[in-house]
Parts: sequence; structure tokens; C-alpha cells
Amino acid sequence: MRIALAQINPTIGALSENLEKVKTCYRRGISEGVDLVVFTELALSGYPPKDLLLYEGFIDRERELITTELLPLTANSRPPILIGASHRENGRLYNAALVLENGMIKSVHKKTLLPNYDVFDEERYFTRADKLDIASLAGQPAAVAICEDIWNDRDFFSEPLYDTDPLENLFAQGARMLINLSASPYHLGKHALREKLLSFLARKYQAGIIYLNQVGGNDELVFDGSSLVYNSRGELIYRAASYKEELFYVETDDLFRLADIKQSPGQDDIAEVFNTLCLGVKDYVTKTGFSRVVLGLSGGIDSAVVAALAREALGPENVLGILMPSPYSSGHSIRDAVDLAENLGILYRKVPIEGPFKAYLSLLNQEEETHMDLAEENLQARIRGNILMHISNREHYMVLATGNKSELAVGYCTLYGDMSGGLAVIADLPKMMVYELADYLNQMKGREVIPRNTINKPPSAELRLDQKDEDSLPPYNILDPILHFYIEDNLSPTTIISKGFEPSTVKGVIRMVDRAEFKRRQAAPGLRITTRAFGIGRRMPIARSYEY
Amino acid sequence: MRIALAQINPTIGALSENLEKVKTCYRRGISEGVDLVVFTELALSGYPPKDLLLYEGFIDRERELITTELLPLTANSRPPILIGASHRENGRLYNAALVLENGMIKSVHKKTLLPNYDVFDEERYFTRADKLDIASLAGQPAAVAICEDIWNDRDFFSEPLYDTDPLENLFAQGARMLINLSASPYHLGKHALREKLLSFLARKYQAGIIYLNQVGGNDELVFDGSSLVYNSRGELIYRAASYKEELFYVETDDLFRLADIKQSPGQDDIAEVFNTLCLGVKDYVTKTGFSRVVLGLSGGIDSAVVAALAREALGPENVLGILMPSPYSSGHSIRDAVDLAENLGILYRKVPIEGPFKAYLSLLNQEEETHMDLAEENLQARIRGNILMHISNREHYMVLATGNKSELAVGYCTLYGDMSGGLAVIADLPKMMVYELADYLNQMKGREVIPRNTINKPPSAELRLDQKDEDSLPPYNILDPILHFYIEDNLSPTTIISKGFEPSTVKGVIRMVDRAEFKRRQAAPGLRITTRAFGIGRRMPIARSYEY
Repeated sequence: MRIALAQINPTIGALSENLEKVKTCYRRGISEGVDLVVFTELALSGYPPKDLLLYEGFIDRERELITTELLPLTANSRPPILIGASHRENGRLYNAALVLENGMIKSVHKKTLLPNYDVFDEERYFTRADKLDIASLAGQPAAVAICEDIWNDRDFFSEPLYDTDPLENLFAQGARMLINLSASPYHLGKHALREKLLSFLARKYQAGIIYLNQVGGNDELVFDGSSLVYNSRGELIYRAASYKEELFYVETDDLFRLADIKQSPGQDDIAEVFNTLCLGVKDYVTKTGFSRVVLGLSGGIDSAVVAALAREALGPENVLGILMPSPYSSGHSIRDAVDLAENLGILYRKVPIEGPFKAYLSLLNQEEETHMDLAEENLQARIRGNILMHISNREHYMVLATGNKSELAVGYCTLYGDMSGGLAVIADLPKMMVYELADYLNQMKGREVIPRNTINKPPSAELRLDQKDEDSLPPYNILDPILHFYIEDNLSPTTIISKGFEPSTVKGVIRMVDRAEFKRRQAAPGLRITTRAFGIGRRMPIARSYEY
Repeated sequence: MRIALAQINPTIGALSENLEKVKTCYRRGISEGVDLVVFTELALSGYPPKDLLLYEGFIDRERELITTELLPLTANSRPPILIGASHRENGRLYNAALVLENGMIKSVHKKTLLPNYDVFDEERYFTRADKLDIASLAGQPAAVAICEDIWNDRDFFSEPLYDTDPLENLFAQGARMLINLSASPYHLGKHALREKLLSFLARKYQAGIIYLNQVGGNDELVFDGSSLVYNSRGELIYRAASYKEELFYVETDDLFRLADIKQSPGQDDIAEVFNTLCLGVKDYVTKTGFSRVVLGLSGGIDSAVVAALAREALGPENVLGILMPSPYSSGHSIRDAVDLAENLGILYRKVPIEGPFKAYLSLLNQEEETHMDLAEENLQARIRGNILMHISNREHYMVLATGNKSELAVGYCTLYGDMSGGLAVIADLPKMMVYELADYLNQMKGREVIPRNTINKPPSAELRLDQKDEDSLPPYNILDPILHFYIEDNLSPTTIISKGFEPSTVKGVIRMVDRAEFKRRQAAPGLRITTRAFGIGRRMPIARSYEY
């Protein structure tokens, strides 16, 4: 049996547009003489559709399109379709896989394990099915499972999340191959984990496995594609493209043969991060109806890296840098920012903020003299935010926020100031990783794209004279690991201290993190990179007490 | 048996502080000679603790305090305690009620129905228990259930959310009375629904019911207290205070006698809304460590109502109004704002925005002339936001945002401008309800607190000459019902149109709502009033397609 697998990039809620992609892939599959065409989890709505699922009209429309547009394609013994879709039964909604065959819905396979942690809210929408039954695909018995359904093996995971493992039942029913329809978002380390698990399952059940993943950026989440095929010996026989759409083909015979098929190469972590961010920027900007972006260029590392990413994602003609020097900007900042813009070949403008700053000072201090307090530091950041938003409003650019995860964590950023923007590109990148990415960018291009001086100078917000990040924060090589343990691993202060950090540093950092919750609640969506990003995956109270 | 019931206002995460409240209530109960003291759901952590539950140290600390501080209180045959707390068992976490008796945890009652819709995320943290067993409380058999556990009666609800009803099992085991530990947030209509359900259940099972609810504001949610006691005939025999703490007492004999006990009076809707918002403001401001608030006074109805609410919540000495006229402000706006401030007895300052506005125009237009475009309208709102944040940063006031639900819905508001603030007080009040509240405030005070002119003039943002809301939006008596059907009832455009609205109006409104999602994602937390507020209870994608 020859199967076509469609790794598509759907737009959330764009039922008709996504349907066109499905139909195009189906037609191409037919022209290639396949026996089955497979699509990802919730392929027509895109994943995650979130509360669109609560709109009755939305689910009805999805089913209507399946009935009126997809079912007829499969009539007259044309190849069946296996596709992820919502499914209502006895007043309950399921996340399901439908087999469309000969003009009818031949079988429905309902997801049994519903992720409801981290960024996932599936219990909010769907009912868990009790078990999964084997499917007959083009006459052959196969296990069909949806995303999380394969992630609970009790031999692989020391602490499985769920009480049951639907694969046990599926393979007990005699399945010899498994097709998994996924929408699995990227985070660091996920590729390796996926490949390890799939290889393990293939060996355990002596079954070929086809793992089909969604691709594309949807708000905070980037789905990396990288669909995988394993033979029944647990050998990788195909790895689809990462970060782009692909229609690929598998012969079921190959699932039970020795590996001999070529695969796309895997990538190292920092390359993955780079590609994730590029796709995240591109899809967020274009799927919200923008084509170009504007950002402030301070001469610092964060805005330099974001500008370089945006240039890769959108092309140099769609990136506008704004230099907004103040009386506290050092001479090298302007030069570094200009160097960057010229290295990238992007347009830039210089808009000094002194005029509005002085006007505010006259108004708020009764004279133009500065008080040099936190309020005035924030004011400078807010004037810059206003200028960027003004350009956005007048010229239809999306503003990119350039803050990194370390500063967002400790609140070393100004609400409505440098936090302004439609998308916070590197909001889930710790500062040390921003440097790593800068080095990677320069290496990749084989030249100095991010100016050497930007990489080498000590980080500074330049909101007062001779200000340095280290005046207010621990050095980043101390700060970042503490933040990692607290935010990504949920460790208590005691445990973090036991790893060898200064108790007062740990407690101070945690206090800063907790107290900055109100800022993060109003932050722009940030692209998720680590195992725990701020935003939908971390839900913290604001009005709370601090016991540390 | 005499039972003390503690309707307390915990601060989220303040384990030690909440413990002190628990101990104080227990001691007062003992001095009143009770046989049992009862506390609300998750009483020590406060509800909802959200992702604090994921910090291992947090749950361990809660249990440690129960073991070392509460259990010893109950030793030597002193009265037992029934209290809501997290409970870990076989690697799973449960939302439980613990019976602490004679220095030991005598029984654990685990919640079986976990709400995971609207603002609730309990499946994210807790495992569902299979069933609830009867408790022995001071020697008497009783049904103990936690919040949602009582909300699935198949005779009361036409479409029960869950497959099982734990009450059936509890009463089959011979319970004659039910104690429900709740943390049930307010929304319009909830009081009536609660009272109807409880009376129904009491009659159905011929059982006395004690319903104990948390009180207090926690971020978006306001818990109204209003704990209730019903006799086994379904008659209300006690209604505890709304919107404040109360320790009250119930004789179990009374649960099976004719009603003769006095109750606090119920309130009508708009009084409830008023009290909810006052408590929400007070608790959010104080629990985040602030004591005073600042807000812009435009002379319009929204800021007037928010100022009046803040004055009620915090006292006139803690409310500062800022008048920020622009060249487009009408003369009456200033006068109306001054009248309001004087009626309320709050302080106010005048900070005209013309200086910074002209400085921005020179910078961005190359001359001081205005382009009169949307960018400049937003700029004025952002200058005002900057001024308020400056006062906040310098003088430690919390900024209150004053936008209403109607404008937040359609995006008739400026991100980083009038949307700035720590709390969006009336963000879940449709414009028509803001007027209703203004009338209520004036009636309640028996004089013109909100100036008559503020109520009577047509709403305007005053960001350009002679601007009126109705230039851009349908009249609010058309807009508000459409928004209600779309946002609170999730109805499709087709269904809304079928109710008699202009198709083009409905589609236009829905398009505005969908396109403003990016603004709402960065909005300040808003106090929840309706059955569906923006924020944590409505989770929408931003980068999506619009099919209407």
C-alpha cells in the first residue's frame, strides 16, 4: 500500500482555506497513485483552535465541509482519506480521526489521552474516549492514534501521566502498523525525545510507525513538522522537512524492511531555535494580515538578533529599524545600530526622543530638569514604544518587541515601553541563548552580521548615565540557570540553593520573578522555545503573597 | 451538633497568613462551644492557586502547615476541623476535603467533578476521584462534597456536564445532611441559580445542606461569600453576608426543622454588580501591596463610574483623578470631570497633554501640524497612559483602566493608551450597564454624584474634533445585545441575525470583535461580572482567519 502524508501549515479557523490545501494534497496523492491520503490532527480548523471550538457554528461548519467537499472526493472507490477533525457524539465533543471512504465516514477514532498541562487545554473542549479501535485502511488493519495517545508508554516513561495506554489495546487487536496524527509544538529537546519514543514503540510492538505532524506558527506555538517514519525494527526510514510543508509518500512494505531510505538531516539545538523563531515570526506576521515589521534598534544584542531573525523571515525590504537615541545613549549605540542595519540591508530611520522627553519633563517636573528616577527611565522606554506604535498605526507595520526571557522574568523591562509590540520574538530566549544565537547567525552568514561590538559590550538599558544590567541583576551566567530551575523546572528556592547558588541571590531573583507577574500578564505573545514559556503555558496569580 | 462555618477571604499563596485566619476562626468556634469548624475549598492556598500548585514546595508547605499547626489543635478530643486542601496520593494530586480529628487526618474526601471550562482549569492540576464516601463528623454521618461536586444533578440540569453525580452515591450511603466546601466566583445570575439548585437538592434528598463559599477578590474573580443553609424541606434558613468575611453557626437540628432563622437580605442585580466591583477593586489593590489608585478623568461616564467605585472601595483619600485635556477636549469635559471629583471628594490634578503632543508631532510629522489620522488619535491616548504610569511609578499609585466591555470587545480603545493600568475595573460591563450603574450610584447616594451632564451627553473619545462613538459604532442599545449573543452565548452570526438585527451590522460587529483579539491579549485583568468575561475565561487565537 502506498500512502501520501500531508504535512500542512493550516491557519487557525480558516476552514475553507485549509480545506483547499487538503483537496490539493489529495489530488496530488491521487496523481501519484496512492491508496490513502493522511492529514494531521484537527487539520481543517488548525491546531489549537481554542475557544473557536465553543462556537457551535464553527464545528458545524467544519463537519459540513467534510460532508459536502471531502466525502464526495472519495466516492467511486477513489482512495480514502484519514483526517483529524472534531466529532460530536451523544452531546459530547471528541478530538477524532475520521476515515472517509467511498463517500462515507467509515470509522471514527476518538482521542483517549487529552493533554491539559503546559500550553494545552484539551479537557476544556473534548471528552476523553475510553479506548481506540483498530482501523481498516484501504483494506489493511492499522492502529490510528491522535498525538498524545502515543505518549504514555509505561516502559518508556517512569511516571506516565495517564492511567491507560491506548496502544496496548490497539496492538492487542493485531495492528502491525501505527499512524499517528499529530499537532506537536516545538520546544528544545523535543525532536530527540520524539525520535527516541517512536523508535522504542516500533521495536516494542514490532510495528511500522508513521508520525505525521502539523507545521507552522500559530500565535506562541511553532509546529516544526519533521514528520517521521520508522520501520518495525525501530529504524528511522524517513524524516520529513522541518519548518515547511511537505507531501511525502510511504510504501507500507518499507515499514517492515531494513532502513534504506534517505532522510532529511537533523539539526542541532541552536539551528532549531533559529528556524523555529523564523517560522514563528513569518507565520504570525502574515497570518495576522501584515507583511512588514518595525522594531527599535538600540545597538544592543536583543534588538540586533530580532532584526536579523525578522530579515530572514520576511526579507530585508520588510524590516524597518528605528534608532531612538536619548541623551543617555552612548555614541557606540548609534554606530552599532547603523552597522547592524547596513549589515542586514534593512531600512532604518533615526528618531531622537529628546523633544518629547523634555516636553514630558516640563509637564511632570514643572521644569525640563530630570529627576533621574525609575519613572523617568520608564518614560523614555514608553516614548520609544509610542513612536513605534505610531509608525505601526500610520504605516501598517507590525511592531516586534525585542525583550528576552531573562529580563521578562525579573521585570527588567517597561510595560507599555519596550514591551510594546504585536509579537515578542525572543521572549522565551534566556539572555545567554541570545548571545549563542548571535554567534550562530554570524557563523551561518560567514561574516559579521551582528556587529562584534554589540556582542562584546556589557548589556545596558541606557536609561540613565553609565547604566549596566549588572547594576540591578546578577550576571547572566548566574541569573539564567536560577531562572531555568525556577521557571522551567518549578523547583523551590531551597532546592535551587542546594545546587550551589547564593541563598540571597536565589531569593532575590525569585522575588523579582514573582513581583513581575503583572507585567507579563500584559505582555505580547512570545514564541515558545523552552519547555516552559511565559504566557498560556504558565498561569500565575498576580494578587498573591510571597512567602520566600 | 453545633457547627461553626468560616467564610474567609484568603490571599492566594499566603499559606501562613491564611493559616492564621483559620486558627483564629477555630479558636472563636471553640469559645462558642461548637462540635466542628468548617473551612472553604483550598482554604490555605486560596482559590484559585493556579500554577503555584505546580511548585512542589508549595503543596508540601501546605501539608506541613496542616500537620504541624492544625492537627495538634484538634488533639485531646477538641472539635474536629473540616477543611479544603490539596492531597497527594499515589503520585496524583487531588482537590480534597480533610477531616482533622484528634490530632490525625481521619478521612479524605476527594473532589470527583473538576471544572475545566470558562475560568476554571482544575484538570490541569488535579485528578478526578471516582467517588465520594460519607464522612463521620463529630460522630454523625454526613455527605462532604467540594464545590462542583453538587452541580451535576440530572433532574435539575437538562444537560449535565459529567457522566456521574457523586451525590447519588453519598445519599445512597445514608447521608442526611450535606456540607459543600466551595470557592464559587460571582457572575450575574449566579446567586439565583445557586439558591434554586440548593433548595432543589435539599428537597430531593430530604437533607439539610450547608453551602460554605469563599469570599474576596482574587485577580479577575470576585468570590461573593453569601454562604447558604437549607433545611431538609428546601427552605433557606441562613444566608451569610455577601462580600465580607463571616464566621457563622448552624445547629444541625435546625437543618430538619421548619425555617425560622433570619437571613441577610438578597440584593438586586445592579447592587450585586456594585458590590462585586468594590470588593474586586479593594482586594486587587490591597493584595498587590498598593493602597491608592490614580485614574484619568475625561468627563465621560466610564471614568466617572470607575472613580466612584474606587472611592467606595478605598476611601476618597486614596483616589487621585488626573484631568488630561487636549485641544480636542470640549469645555464641558473639564467641568464635568471637576464636578465629579468634587462630588466624590477626591483629589485631582490637571495635566494638559498639548506639550508632549506637539513635541511628538514635530518629531513624527516634521512640523507641529496634525495629520488627524488614527495614529494621532492613539498617540493622545498613549500620552495620557504615559502620564498616569509616570505618576504610578513615581508616587506608587496603581493605575485603574476605565474601559468598558463594549469598547474592549470592538477594539474601540488604544493599546498602551487608555488600556493602561493594573486593573481594568469595568472591563466586563457593557456600556449600557455602565449607565445603569451610574444611575444606581446616584440613587444610592441620594444626590448627583455622577454629574447629570456626564450621563446625558453622547459618548465620545474626544480624540478628534466633534468625534462621537456613534460615528464608528452602532448605537449601544444595538451593539450591546449583539455582543452579548456573540461573546457570552457563543452564537453564530446567522443565529444572531435571526433575532432581528441587520446582517451587515452583526457581521461588522463580529469582525471588529475578532480583529481586536490582539489588544485584549495585552489588556489588564478585568473584574468578571457576566457569564463570559474577556481574559482567562475566553481563550482565542490571534493569528486566525475570519470566515464571516
